[in-house]
Amino acid sequence: MDCIFCKIVEGTLPSKKVYEDERVLAFHDIKPEAPVHLLIIPKKHIPTMNDAAAEDLPLIADMHRAAQQIAKEQGVAETGYRLINNCNPDSGQLVYHIHYHLLAGEKLGPLNGK
Amino acid sequence: MDCIFCKIVEGTLPSKKVYEDERVLAFHDIKPEAPVHLLIIPKKHIPTMNDAAAEDLPLIADMHRAAQQIAKEQGVAETGYRLINNCNPDSGQLVYHIHYHLLAGEKLGPLNGK
Repeated sequence: MDCIFCKIVEGTLPSKKVYEDERVLAFHDIKPEAPVHLLIIPKKHIPTMNDAAAEDLPLIADMHRAAQQIAKEQGVAETGYRLINNCNPDSGQLVYHIHYHLLAGEKLGPLNGK
Repeated sequence: MDCIFCKIVEGTLPSKKVYEDERVLAFHDIKPEAPVHLLIIPKKHIPTMNDAAAEDLPLIADMHRAAQQIAKEQGVAETGYRLINNCNPDSGQLVYHIHYHLLAGEKLGPLNGK
């Protein structure tokens, strides 16, 4: 499967990991848009949020449990962080494997910075 | 409890609802930042993502199931949408009752529009 996030999960593409468990992986975004910019992904390939079936929804909860822990470890839980999922073209989704951006480390800008 | 989202859940403050089930409510943001700008909240009062206990995580999954349905009903599932949770001051969180913004209806801007 030609998915760069699946290759990161498999270890055939490198990443700067910050978190891993059986179902979830998190690593640094290669084009950070904030002092802390991490990507939290399920190891299972699911292209978009629309494609998360009922059986996949616990994975979404797993990703948030990971986000809570990562935010603490990065020292941004109390200062603040933003979680973003982009789904399909209007959102700017670039990689079609569900991911949450975690942005933090400064006062973040508007939600739709046009 | 002096929480405007709890008052919306109770019906003592008005809102323009788009979705409701036993655990989740969604309504229009009163200061929209995109052609479609909705807020998806749990009916249970949880101040921030940090405060979502293990027992609350299924609620996060519920909010995403709702988001999938809402995106379809709003006609933006295929064009695209962005889900955003802000946690604590750096993110710009204004109401301390967990909520996901759903933004759609145009090509959205950067994640951190500074």
